[in-house]
This record gives sequence, structure tokens and C-alpha cells, in this order.
Amino acid sequence: MSDSRESLLVMSAIPNILADRYASTAMQDIWSAEGRIVLEREFWIAVLKAQRGLGLNIPHEVIAAYEAVKNNVDPESIRQREAVTKHDVKARIEEFNSLAGAEHIHKGMTSRDLTENVEQLQIWRSLELVATKSTAALLAFSRRAEEYKGLVITGRTHNVAAQTTTFGKRLAMFGEDLLRAIENNEQIMRQYAARGLKGAVGTQLDQLNLFEQNASQVSRLEDEVVRHLGIPRSLDNVGQVYPRSMDFEVVSALYQLGAGPSSFAKTLRLMAGHELAGEGFLPGQVGSSAMPHKMNSRSCERINGFHVILRGYMEMAAGLAGDQWNEGDVSCSVVRRVMLPDAFFAIDGLFETLLTVLNNMSANPGMIEHENRRYLPFLLTTTVLMAAVKNGVGRETAHEVIKEHAVATAKDLRNCVIAENNLFDRLATDSRLGLSAEYLKHIYETAGQATGGAHPQVETFMKQARSWGERYPKAKDLQPGKIL
Amino acid sequence: MSDSRESLLVMSAIPNILADRYASTAMQDIWSAEGRIVLEREFWIAVLKAQRGLGLNIPHEVIAAYEAVKNNVDPESIRQREAVTKHDVKARIEEFNSLAGAEHIHKGMTSRDLTENVEQLQIWRSLELVATKSTAALLAFSRRAEEYKGLVITGRTHNVAAQTTTFGKRLAMFGEDLLRAIENNEQIMRQYAARGLKGAVGTQLDQLNLFEQNASQVSRLEDEVVRHLGIPRSLDNVGQVYPRSMDFEVVSALYQLGAGPSSFAKTLRLMAGHELAGEGFLPGQVGSSAMPHKMNSRSCERINGFHVILRGYMEMAAGLAGDQWNEGDVSCSVVRRVMLPDAFFAIDGLFETLLTVLNNMSANPGMIEHENRRYLPFLLTTTVLMAAVKNGVGRETAHEVIKEHAVATAKDLRNCVIAENNLFDRLATDSRLGLSAEYLKHIYETAGQATGGAHPQVETFMKQARSWGERYPKAKDLQPGKIL
Amino acid sequence: MSDSRESLLVMSAIPNILADRYASTAMQDIWSAEGRIVLEREFWIAVLKAQRGLGLNIPHEVIAAYEAVKNNVDPESIRQREAVTKHDVKARIEEFNSLAGAEHIHKGMTSRDLTENVEQLQIWRSLELVATKSTAALLAFSRRAEEYKGLVITGRTHNVAAQTTTFGKRLAMFGEDLLRAIENNEQIMRQYAARGLKGAVGTQLDQLNLFEQNASQVSRLEDEVVRHLGIPRSLDNVGQVYPRSMDFEVVSALYQLGAGPSSFAKTLRLMAGHELAGEGFLPGQVGSSAMPHKMNSRSCERINGFHVILRGYMEMAAGLAGDQWNEGDVSCSVVRRVMLPDAFFAIDGLFETLLTVLNNMSANPGMIEHENRRYLPFLLTTTVLMAAVKNGVGRETAHEVIKEHAVATAKDLRNCVIAENNLFDRLATDSRLGLSAEYLKHIYETAGQATGGAHPQVETFMKQARSWGERYPKAKDLQPGKIL
Amino acid sequence: MSDSRESLLVMSAIPNILADRYASTAMQDIWSAEGRIVLEREFWIAVLKAQRGLGLNIPHEVIAAYEAVKNNVDPESIRQREAVTKHDVKARIEEFNSLAGAEHIHKGMTSRDLTENVEQLQIWRSLELVATKSTAALLAFSRRAEEYKGLVITGRTHNVAAQTTTFGKRLAMFGEDLLRAIENNEQIMRQYAARGLKGAVGTQLDQLNLFEQNASQVSRLEDEVVRHLGIPRSLDNVGQVYPRSMDFEVVSALYQLGAGPSSFAKTLRLMAGHELAGEGFLPGQVGSSAMPHKMNSRSCERINGFHVILRGYMEMAAGLAGDQWNEGDVSCSVVRRVMLPDAFFAIDGLFETLLTVLNNMSANPGMIEHENRRYLPFLLTTTVLMAAVKNGVGRETAHEVIKEHAVATAKDLRNCVIAENNLFDRLATDSRLGLSAEYLKHIYETAGQATGGAHPQVETFMKQARSWGERYPKAKDLQPGKIL
Repeated sequence: MSDSRESLLVMSAIPNILADRYASTAMQDIWSAEGRIVLEREFWIAVLKAQRGLGLNIPHEVIAAYEAVKNNVDPESIRQREAVTKHDVKARIEEFNSLAGAEHIHKGMTSRDLTENVEQLQIWRSLELVATKSTAALLAFSRRAEEYKGLVITGRTHNVAAQTTTFGKRLAMFGEDLLRAIENNEQIMRQYAARGLKGAVGTQLDQLNLFEQNASQVSRLEDEVVRHLGIPRSLDNVGQVYPRSMDFEVVSALYQLGAGPSSFAKTLRLMAGHELAGEGFLPGQVGSSAMPHKMNSRSCERINGFHVILRGYMEMAAGLAGDQWNEGDVSCSVVRRVMLPDAFFAIDGLFETLLTVLNNMSANPGMIEHENRRYLPFLLTTTVLMAAVKNGVGRETAHEVIKEHAVATAKDLRNCVIAENNLFDRLATDSRLGLSAEYLKHIYETAGQATGGAHPQVETFMKQARSWGERYPKAKDLQPGKIL
Repeated sequence: MSDSRESLLVMSAIPNILADRYASTAMQDIWSAEGRIVLEREFWIAVLKAQRGLGLNIPHEVIAAYEAVKNNVDPESIRQREAVTKHDVKARIEEFNSLAGAEHIHKGMTSRDLTENVEQLQIWRSLELVATKSTAALLAFSRRAEEYKGLVITGRTHNVAAQTTTFGKRLAMFGEDLLRAIENNEQIMRQYAARGLKGAVGTQLDQLNLFEQNASQVSRLEDEVVRHLGIPRSLDNVGQVYPRSMDFEVVSALYQLGAGPSSFAKTLRLMAGHELAGEGFLPGQVGSSAMPHKMNSRSCERINGFHVILRGYMEMAAGLAGDQWNEGDVSCSVVRRVMLPDAFFAIDGLFETLLTVLNNMSANPGMIEHENRRYLPFLLTTTVLMAAVKNGVGRETAHEVIKEHAVATAKDLRNCVIAENNLFDRLATDSRLGLSAEYLKHIYETAGQATGGAHPQVETFMKQARSWGERYPKAKDLQPGKIL
Repeated sequence: MSDSRESLLVMSAIPNILADRYASTAMQDIWSAEGRIVLEREFWIAVLKAQRGLGLNIPHEVIAAYEAVKNNVDPESIRQREAVTKHDVKARIEEFNSLAGAEHIHKGMTSRDLTENVEQLQIWRSLELVATKSTAALLAFSRRAEEYKGLVITGRTHNVAAQTTTFGKRLAMFGEDLLRAIENNEQIMRQYAARGLKGAVGTQLDQLNLFEQNASQVSRLEDEVVRHLGIPRSLDNVGQVYPRSMDFEVVSALYQLGAGPSSFAKTLRLMAGHELAGEGFLPGQVGSSAMPHKMNSRSCERINGFHVILRGYMEMAAGLAGDQWNEGDVSCSVVRRVMLPDAFFAIDGLFETLLTVLNNMSANPGMIEHENRRYLPFLLTTTVLMAAVKNGVGRETAHEVIKEHAVATAKDLRNCVIAENNLFDRLATDSRLGLSAEYLKHIYETAGQATGGAHPQVETFMKQARSWGERYPKAKDLQPGKIL
Repeated sequence: MSDSRESLLVMSAIPNILADRYASTAMQDIWSAEGRIVLEREFWIAVLKAQRGLGLNIPHEVIAAYEAVKNNVDPESIRQREAVTKHDVKARIEEFNSLAGAEHIHKGMTSRDLTENVEQLQIWRSLELVATKSTAALLAFSRRAEEYKGLVITGRTHNVAAQTTTFGKRLAMFGEDLLRAIENNEQIMRQYAARGLKGAVGTQLDQLNLFEQNASQVSRLEDEVVRHLGIPRSLDNVGQVYPRSMDFEVVSALYQLGAGPSSFAKTLRLMAGHELAGEGFLPGQVGSSAMPHKMNSRSCERINGFHVILRGYMEMAAGLAGDQWNEGDVSCSVVRRVMLPDAFFAIDGLFETLLTVLNNMSANPGMIEHENRRYLPFLLTTTVLMAAVKNGVGRETAHEVIKEHAVATAKDLRNCVIAENNLFDRLATDSRLGLSAEYLKHIYETAGQATGGAHPQVETFMKQARSWGERYPKAKDLQPGKIL
């Protein structure tokens, strides 16, 4: 019957698209099937050594025999064993034993003593990589914010011209969103805790049996094993598994890390639509197979796409948190096989793309100047309002007067009744505001300075970014790979 | 720098875990990278032929040249082209042209004329496969419902013994949930519509240019191309892309298809916890690497896991619906590369697993009988209540009296004050109900019949399932592959 | 202790914000607490009458007594009863009985026989209202598409100028997205099925007991009750509850209904940012409390907000589907109290807002013309490409030549090196294309016609909308209420 | 037209169901409409005072006039103003001015200077309440864990008997899940930052204008205002709004807080199904309106329902994060009106319910003992395995032997071939294990001690809980209100 798996033993040719097209090799290495098997074997060996060190009768040669074959990974053979046992860990135990010619690993252990800790190790290493890469993005935001700190642009709220700001400040704004997420991620790492060797229902019964109920030896065993993992803390009261809320905590932090970049990418797409800035367009690049003139913000779009993807994986993680039955069930098993690596591939791809955009983007000062000219009188209405208020006019009264003229001017502009924004001429003739033409002219001419505290704010951001760069020194030199 | 992609040209070794471990080869074939490239080339050739047939000057030999090389797929070469163009379709055009030694494909087309239609073709074929496979599951529910239609069990609501029902009826209940989803899926297929050859912004401008503004020829061209796809309808007013709400419609239907199976799986896990039924345990199988006695409901857990996974992909699809900018943007691009195949792999894996469970499951009549005995007097409280009401006692009064005794009995049972449920003895002595010990004994002794309409309901379900089986005749013989 | 509810008996002053600010009174009426209690009492009375009609001994005066007090709703009294019983339905039974001085309602019924059917009735009436209101929006799209079918605009993909289209076509595009969702919604209504009177575990045991095991009488009883509801079908094999996948089906259809409007709203926000169109700005309206000139797309933003809200409620519905334990559990109870009314309030508010926007929006032809002028040569690159191809130049070669000049022109425009788009002058001097300056001038001058099939596509949409308007005749005259 | 809002001026009678039925009055107070208006007015007055203190010409009497009327809240009047302005803040400015007979508030401010800060204040106070209440739940877990630390139960994984543990340890396990979430919540509070007075696009332009470009005075103004709020930090680089990822951070933390309670509630529902424990059943309470004997876990089900609800609100929050356009748009506005209060009402209702369950729950030792007896030999298979391994038998060999007998025993039990679990008799006769009947008997008889480290683990949890209780001293005495 062709509608079904013809054979369990044919390895699929369908690649993981997130790993294949978008993630870095560093992230791929953490989550490859072969790499994981080696991590597991190293974990078993670490347990063996600790057990031996604490007095269990495990011959030195046996440990050596396991070590000798630990990199000898044959996925096909393991898969054949699993087709019989229907139990993936049992299959991998048998394979490793068979290679080493011994039956000493996994003593006092349940499957989850192995898999939970090894998966946490993969998560931990991924978090370290993400911490470095997100900090590299923060530094890139900072570099660009510095570069553009003097470039005055038309700030927009509700997608409509509002007040002037600088492009540097705009970048710092998205940067600060990212910065908060980096701080959150660091905090999650600081609280991260390994499940440790807790046994089948979390009571450490079998290790205690092995060590004749000597609790302090079992405690030392666990300490050594957690030290092998390099994870800062370990959990105390668990069942078969660590609480799945921990996976949710991690994946929701990844989603938060994507928020600042996603807002930035959306804004750069908007700016590109106004020709104010672009993400860069390389020699040889094609924007559209139909329309030769197209230069699309395809990398920014991709960043937004990754954020949607992360939301999907977060949803999977959320579906597991709070769904534990008794000491643990593993309806989470297939979900975590998919969600954990793919969430990390997605965030990794997001940062690879973001770093590329931050490297290649550029602003178009001429177009920016053109936009500013059109909107400048509008951008200054609050300045006029403050002037009128200081003149003694009631705030809401002045607001109403200015609104009357501004809305009329805007309508004339949109209807092409006028070609230039003449709001200030209109305001000068309205006695209710009590502002002279001269004074209004003065406001208009010093408008270039109407960016308020934008400049010192950028300086503050740069200082913060620098300080994070010092926490993650590898971030400074990190460059994205070539993206597709 | 080791944190980044060292080379774009190394194919990743990380497989798509859903395809690799769970999906059928039939579903994998639809979504493989190579298969898709062939589908695209066939689509281009279909367009070429239709264009030639409608009078465009495309030499017959050129079409033959394309046909000769269409199965000649070299992903590595395409990837190298994409590394230059940053445009996947342009890379595939160049590759196909280079193989055929011509430049005739893709005339009047934009990338999305190709990719939207081909992806819809993949979706369409997947939906057909899902329709058959879900109907196979419906038939399996029906077979099992028939088998167990006479097996009286303790029905539970709020996870507490409520009234008697039959195991057959319980299975029919989950089957009817599935049946509704199958009907919904069929309706979605009936309404499914191809985007067709609409050009860059949906106006068919370039095909009209090619055909000297002859609208009826362009219309015939599109009709032929849609007929090539085999999709029932085509859209009229689109932009660059078809509305992403269509993807959402499809993936949310897949989620709905998983609901009945998921409730069934959860219930079988609950029954296994009471040793009333089990999903089957094969020779050689291992339940736990630590605890030799374990026989876990691992396949049922997997079904629940797949449902969580589908919710994540639905979330991704939901994130694209309603997010179109102007005539279209493709922040959806990376999302759909992940979400579409993986959602179909997940639902396919769910049904493969479900079919296996429905084949292998069994009930434990002895344990079921044991449970029934414990709860029988409780299960009959509504029957007593109706008897009292017919006797003229006020409904709420009778309810209060029975509750008083039932709660007391339950507490005595839980505290092991009594070993057997003696509720009926207590009721017999309470004059407020006005029911004689004799009459109560009669109720108790005919309790086996207290399954109300369960039997005819199962018959109704079987009839409905049969009728769906006739709509999808391949479902009858479909057998799941061996699952891991 | 002040951190807790001081009293159960104080009715909260916090209103349902979705009902209070956004939903129509028609939708509020369906879901009000008092309205629901009346619906329940009408349902009990319908059951009483049917039971009496089928021979049960229920005095006529008793029914009359219930009818006399059915509109006598005292939420406070019910709440006091519930504080004792911890069971909301039991509290409402006791209240109704106490008012009528009888104990005849709810015979043979379980709580869910009442609440499931009444909630389905609320859902059903809401769906009818949504069907009418969404069709009204479809007709409004159609009116506006007709009005603007001749207004040529710069079509955009990836938010970048692509090809010309018409504003009418753009509106029709979003309209067709909505139209598909309306069709889907209708289909869901056609398949909608009431749970009916199935009893505690779905076997109809107690009604069968009441009617001395006469199955055909119980079947007639159920038919009459479902006819009272006006729902087209009824379910067969249920447990205590109807499958929660039905709620998911409904709420996901609401989400789909929001997709077209959401894409439209986002696009109008983008157009407003370019001053090409606006959602309308009423006399007295204020855009910003700070900046008097602001005219924001606040209603369009609200439409997008409602779509996000609907996704949240869909998520809640998705969390219940597939989570049934045995014959039913009600971890769904609190979720459905929130999710069902609020999802309908949100979709209702979305359509109220959309109808308002479609009534008040306007285009700015002058600004549109200005944009078209800037981009026209780019918008025509595919026309040039087709001309070159017809001239015998290889498609990809011509693409490369045009791209070279177009990218250079775009960069000069962005850098303000040139003020007018002179791409066609550049193309005329490049011999590789073989197109004369004359011929290119011809293309340029007939550009106004370069909207391909936009016009007939709009006609098609108008025809489709008309046909839906005939299915829901109340839609034609429906006007939105005044929105906040 | 009856399908629409008849009047904007009728206050809806539909209450917020989460506030009305489930949230504490303390939480309701934070989010009531009237309360919010007072918070806003206090904020304006704080700004006025600070501005005056820093030299702005604001008469003392004006401030006094505002203070005199600040509690004079007339929602209806405000609503009538909003119906004209279409701008809620402008309506509230006008109302407050009109009451005070002045126009001095809101100087140099944009709406978001008011609303962002006041909403953050509401969030902040809600987080404080949640911190206390979740810690109260932690202490309740600890009390119950201590009470049941000696009660040996059958630990289950995959819902199947696995190893012995204690009920106290099981409670500590869910408690530790909660504890981690409390720590996460505290960290989020520590990082929480107010937006401050940043002006229309975040540059503080208008305050700088008011204060003649004196940056240090503007900085002092902001410091005073943030001190008024009591929020620990303030943001630096923002636009019109604070990053919406902050809302996501908060709501996802609430979801995480619900995870441990949700797993606990699910487990108690499972235990109730086996009659091992129950959430409590009060005098007068009714389990089912049909079935008098029912005692349902309705409060535990509600906890699970709240968790699903929270996932929906998190989804809404996630839909806003990363969706900022330029300096800010407010498609978030309607979403936050719904999502923020309702998420806090839901988590508050969850903890009210959880505290009630933890107060009222009880275990049934007799039933627990009965279950233990049935499974004891199975629960000891790992102990036997360890004994065999220490005897020198290969781990996997011993596993296979024990599995053979255990599976046979389980099948005999399920088929009622045997009434008592005789696995140890079978093991005693199998020479492959090399374990004497005597030794096996010894294992069996000391089984009560086979709870490994359960006891000290509980002690550890109690210590941790105590330490959190000291951080939130109000938690110790917090009692839940009466729940419906």
C-alpha cells in the first residue's frame, strides 16, 4: 500500500529546512543526531567514572572500552534496534553496550536520567550561542545608531508624520527593546537548572540502592554529573522529567529576543516603501523574476517570518507546560523533538539575517530631507502649542486653533491644492494664538534642533550596548555567515 | 568565525524529524525538494504547451528540450545559483534553462505564478491523502465500536463514575468527532481554489501583453493550467499571492481532524491507568529502560503530542492570515516553507499512529467488570431518581435524599469502612423516596441494560462510517506502516 | 483579608469591555446574563411541553406557572443559591422552581442537556448575525470597488512599487478574501448540529426510563426540542458534552472572517502613510492630544487589533478541542464562559468598525497621480520585457539588461541625482534590447491602460457580492452603529 | 436597524465575567474604570506639582482646584465627550479641565505620557498582588507536603504504576515548579521599567521646550514622576509607546505561574478518578444536577481552564510584540484594553481557586494502601534489578528476565487470572537472576522504605518555601475569598 511507510530503514532525504537554509553550523552541530549520541555517551561515561570514583565496582577497562567506541555512531543500526524495542533509549543502550562488549552503563538510571540532562545540555549550549549572537546584534544596532545619530528624520506614530527625531534614535529604540530581551535571557540562564540523576519517579531510589542508601554519596554523584554538564543549578523535587514550564520559559525568551528585531525589520520595510532607507542590494541579486526593477526588503521580511515561526514553537512549548500527569508523562516527547531544535534554528536564522541587514543597510538622506520638508510645519505643531501655552493661551484652546489650520493644510496638500506646506503662514494670521510671524519663523528655522533629547538618548544606548559587549566578549567579532 | 555558516554549499545532515520518523513515504514524496522541482518544471512545461497551443511562437523542439531534462535535478547547482541571485525562483529558472539550452519558460510569469500554484498542488495532493487516511481511521473506529458494542463500561464525566455506557459507544463518540472533521475537510477541498496565472500584481498584465490584450486567450491559458493542477476552482481577484487565510483554513482543518483522535488517545491513556484497556504491547517492546514491568501508552501519548504540534503550525498559519500589505508581501515566505510540509507530516504521523493503535488495542473485560461492580449503585442513581419522580416525589427532593446517602456511601468506601457499595440498602430504608427494597433490587438486577440508547447509536455511527468509506474507497484497504 | 473577594454577593462594576465599547446591542442581547436565563427557561418549558405531549404526567397548570414567571430574573437570588450548591445549574433550577412553586422541570435531564443546547442556540444566533453583517461588509467592499474601479494606482509587492493596478481591484482583492470566509462560515452553519437531550453520558438513559424504554418517543422528544432551537442538525454519538472541536470550528471561522478586513485595514494604514487615501476624519475628531495636526487611521488599527484578539480566543478554543476525558469533563467550563461571548463581541466590533471605515474612507487622486508619475517607468518594466521577448531577445537576457538600468535609475532617484524617473531614456540607448525610443515612448504613453484585467476582475467581484447579498437580504440595509 | 448599537450612551449590562465571578476585589479595584480615572488624575497632578516645583508658572490654586475634583468621576459625561472627539484621552482631559475650571494639565505631554505610565502602574500593582498570592500558594503547597510527607503512594509515569514515592513529594514537585515561576516573576518585576514622560515620539521635545531646553530639569521632572509610580526603573530610548515585548514578558510570566498549579490540578483530577484523593466537597454542594452521587473535581478543572485562558491572553500579547511601526502605532490599543486586565483577573482567579483546593483537599489513605498493595511487586522491579546487578548479572540481561515475568504477571492480573500480584514468587524461581526467595522477601518487606530521597527532598522544598514566604510576608496570612 503506497500510502504508508514502506520501510522504517530508509533514511529520509527531506532535510530540516530551518537548519539547512538558515541556521549557522555552530547551531546545527549542537542539534545533529550524531552529535547528540556522542553527548549521551559522554554523559554515560561521566556517570560511570563518578560511580567508580565513589566506590562502585566498575572495572577501569570497561570504561576504557566504552570510551574507545564513543564516536563510533551508526544511526542505521540504532534505528533497527528501535524498530524492535519501540524504545529509543533502550536501543541506544544496547548499541553502545554491543560496541563496547559490556553491560555497565545506565546503572541506577532511568531513560530520563540520560535524555533530560542531555537535552538540557543542548539547550544550555544553544542559549550560550544565542546570548553571544544577540549581543552581536546589539553592538551592530549601536554602531548604526552612532552613525545615524545626526540624521534628522520625520518621526511617525500611527504611521503618520508626528515630530522630528533622528534615525540614530530610531535604531536605538529597537536596540533597547532587544537589550531588555538579552537581559531577560541572561536571567533565564542564571536560573537554569539541570534535572540531574533523580531516577524513575524522582526519588533517586536506584542510585541509593546502588550506594547502600548512602545519601551523601548519591548527592556527590549528582554534583559531579551536573558539573560535567556545566549548568549552574540543579533541581530538587522532580518526577520523571523536569517541569515543562522550563522549556516554555526558554522558548518564550527566544520569542522576546525576536521582538525588537521584528519591529526594526517592519520599520525598515516601511522606510523602503518611502525610499528613505534600504536593507542593501548586492551585485547579482534579483528582486523579482518578473519585474527587473524590484529591490525588495526580502531579508527584513524573513526576520518577520522567523518571528511568526517562533510564535508557533512557543505555542508548542506552552501546550506542554502545566500538562504533567503524576510523576510525568511523555506526550511531550514528539513535541520536544520538533520544537526544541527548530526554535533554536529559527532564532539563530533570525540573528544571522539581522546581522546581515545591519551590516548592509543604508539610508537615503536626500529622500529623507525631501520628506522632512513636506511635513516640517506639522512636526512643529507641539512646539507652537508650547509657545502659545507659555504665552498664556489655554492648552486646549490653542490645540483647537492649531488643529483647525493643520487639518485644512493637510487636506489642501492631499488634494494638491497647494504644493508646499504653508501651515505657518496660516497660524501667523490667527490672532487667537498670539504668536507673531517673526516668532513662528524663528521656530521654523531652528527646527533642525527639534529632536529634543534624541542625541543624549543614543549616547546612553551606546554605553549600555558597550557594557553588554563586555559581558559577551565573543560578540564583538562575530560576523554572520553568508545568507541565502 | 565558527559561530556562523562556514559554507552555503554543504548540504545539512539534519533531517526533518517529522518526515524522517513519522510521516508515510507517500506524504514525503509530495514534499521532497526534488519532487517539488519536478512539479515546477512540469508546470512550466504545461504553461509552455498552452502558450504554444494558443499561438505563441515557442518551437516544439524547445519544449522537447525542456521535457528531456525535467527529471535532471541537481540541488547543489541550484543552491550555488541562489547564493548569487538571492532569489530562489530565478536560480531555478536559470538552472532549467541552462539544462535545456533555451530561455523560453516563465514568459509573462512572475515567480508567484509558479510557486503559488505548485505549492497549492502540493497542498491539494496532501489533502487528498489526508482525506483517505482519516477515513481509514473512521472505518477503524467503526470496526472497533462494533466489536465492543456489547461491552458495558462505567461511563465517567469529570473523570468520576457517572452512568453505564458501552465501550463501543465511547469509541463511536470519538469517531463522530472525527467524522465531523472529515466532512469539514471535504468541504474545504470543495472550495479550494488555485491562484492561477495572475501576474505580478494580479492583473494578468504580462500574459495580456504576450497575447496582444486578447483576454479570452489569457482566460483559456489559465483554465488549461488550472486543469493541469487538478484543483476544482480558481480565484479571481488576487494580488501577487493567494490570500493566506486559505493556508489557515487548511491547517486549522488539520487541527480539527486531530481533535477526535486526541480525545480518544487521552481516554485510552486514562483507561490504561485503570488497567481497563491498553494500546497493545508487542513482543520485544520495552516500556522503560529502568523499570522492566512498564507497559506505557506511548503511541497514544504521541497522538496527543502531534495535536500540540499541529496547534503550533496552525499558530504560524494564523500569523500570516490578515497580514497582507498591498498586493502582497512575502514575510510569509520562510514561514510557509516550514509550516506547510511540517503540518502535513504531523497530521500524517498522527493518523499512522492512530491506525496502529486502533489495530492493536484491546480491552480487559475482567477489570472492567470489577470497576462496574464497585460503582454500579452510583451509576443507577438517576434511574432511582426517575423511579421516585414517577412515584410522585418532587425531583429536587428526591435528588437531595439520594445525594445524602450516595455521598455517605462514597465516603465509607473511600475510607474503607465498607468493602462493597451498599447504597441500595440505605435507599431502601429511607421512606422519603417511597421505593421498596424489592423494586430497588429489580433496578439493580436489570442494570446491565442501563446503557440506554448506546446500542442503536453505535449502529448509526457504523452506517455513517460506511457511507464515508464509500466516498473514499482507497480508505478501506489502507494499512499503517510500521511505526517507530 | 483585603486581598480577596469580600463578598460573593456584590455584583461587579467592571463591564465587559468588548461588549461595552464595541459590540452592537443585537450581539449584546444574545449573550446577556438575563437573556440567557430566559433562553434556558424557554428551553425547559419546551421540554416540559414536549414531555407532556408525549404522555408524561405534567399538569397543564404547572407549565402555565413556569411560563408566568419565566421573565422574572433575579441574578442576585441565583447567585446566593450558587454560593451554597457550588453548581450553577442546580441554583437556577431551584430558583425557577421556587418562583413557579413546582418541581417538574429538568426531568430526565442532566445540566448539560440544558446548557449545551442553550449555548449552541446563542452560538447559532450569533452566527446568523455575523453572516448578515459580514455580507454587509462584502457589499460595502463591492460598492467601493465599483466607485474606484477606474482609479489607477501604483500596485506594490514587498511594499515596493511593482505594476499599476486600480484601487477598485485592490478593494476587490480584499473583498474576495472576505467572500471566501463568508462561504466557509455558511458551510459551518450548514453542518452545525445540536447536542440534543442525550443525558448524563450521552445514552439518553433517563429519558428512556421516563418513557418506559420507548425509543421512538424519546427520539420524537429530541426532535421537537431541536426544532425549538432552530438548529439544522443534531448529533448522534456524544457524551456529556458536544465535541469541543465544534467550538474551535466556529471560532476559527470567525478568525478567518477577520483576515480580509485585517489585510485591508493594514493596507489603508500604509496608504494613509503615503497620503494616498484615508479612513475619514470627522468634525470634532482629535488625532492626538499632543499634536494637533494628526489624523490617524485609528479605526483601521482597531480592526487589526480585533484580529489579534480573535486569535487569542481561537487559541482558547483550540486548547479545548481534543482534550475530552472519557464521556466528558468540564475543564472547558470557565474557558467557554469567557471565550464564546467575547469572540463574538470581537468579530461584531470588527465588522462595526469595518463598515464605518468603508463608509467614510476616501482616496486622494492627486497624491495617487503624483506617486504613479514617479514610478511609472518601473511599473512598465515587465511590459518592456515582454516587448523585448516578442522581439526575440532571450527572456533572462532582457531581464538582466533592464535590471541594470532600473537599479541605476532607482539609485539616482533615491540619491536625488535625478528628479524625474528617466529609465526609458536609458533603455532607448541600449542596443541589447532592440527597442526603439519611439516604441518605448508608445509604451509609456499608453501606460494608463496597463492595468491588465483589473476592470473585468472588479466586475466579477461585484457580481459575486451581489449574489451573496441576495442570500442574506438583511445585509443590504445594515448600517453600523456609531462607533467610539 | 436593530443589528447595531442603538446608542453609545447606554452603559452595557454585561459584566466582565472573569472579574465578576473569579477575581478578588483587590484585583478588581486595580482595574476598575473609575479607579483608573483617579489614577490618571493623580498622575496629572503629580506632573503639575513637579512642573511647578521646577519653575513652571502653574498657580497653586489651580493645582488645588484639580485636587478638589479628582474623585468626582462621571463615566457617562466622559463617554459623551469621546463620542465627539473619537479620542479617549482628549475626552478625559476636557472633563477634568471642565470640573476644575482650568486648562493646566497635560502640558508638554502626549496621551501616551499619561496612559502608558498609568497602565504600567496598574500592571505593577497587579504584579505585586500576584507575587503575594502565588507565594501564599507556595506556602500552602509546603504545608500540605509536610502533612503528607509520610504517606507512601504509587508513583506513576505515563499514567502507569512506576515506583513508590510519597504524596508529600508529589506536592513538593508541583510546588517547585511554582517556585521557579515565582522567582521568574520577581525577576521580571526587578527589570520592570516605566516609559516615563518621553513625549510624542520619545524625544521629550515638548518638556524640553517648556523648560527652555534645560535637560537636567526635564530629567528631574521624569525622575519625580517615576518615583510617584513606584516602578524601579525607567526606559531610555522609546518612541510613542514602551516596547510591547514588555507586556508579553509579563503575561508569559503569568502563564508560567499557572503551569505548576495546572499540573497539580490535573494530577488531583486523576487521583480523584482512582478515589485516592479529592479536592473537598462542602455541605450543600451538588456535583451533578442529574446524578446525586457525583463529587466532581470542579475547582481543579477550573484551574486547568484558567491556564487555557491565560494562553489565549498570552497569544494576544505575543501578537503585539515585534509589531511596532516606526515610533509606534496603536493597533495594540483595543488588544491591551482586553488582554491586560483579563489576564490578571484570570491568574488571580486561578490562585483563589488553587488556595481553596489546597485548603480543602484530602487524601484517602485506605484507597492508597489498596493501590500500593496491587502494584508493590512492580514498583520494586528496579530494586530487584539493582540487586541482580550487584550480584554480577548483566544489567540488560536482568532487565529482560524481570520484564518477561512482570509482563506475564500484569497480563494475568488484567485478565483476572490471578487476584494478587505474585511477581516475586515467579522471580524467586528463575535462576538467571540468582536471587533467593528469602532475599526477595526481604526486599518486599522493606518496601515501605523504598521512597528513596523523597523525605529529604520535601524538607528542602519546605525550606525554600519558607524563605520565599519571608520575602513576601503578607503571603503568610492570605486566605482565599469564598469561591463560586
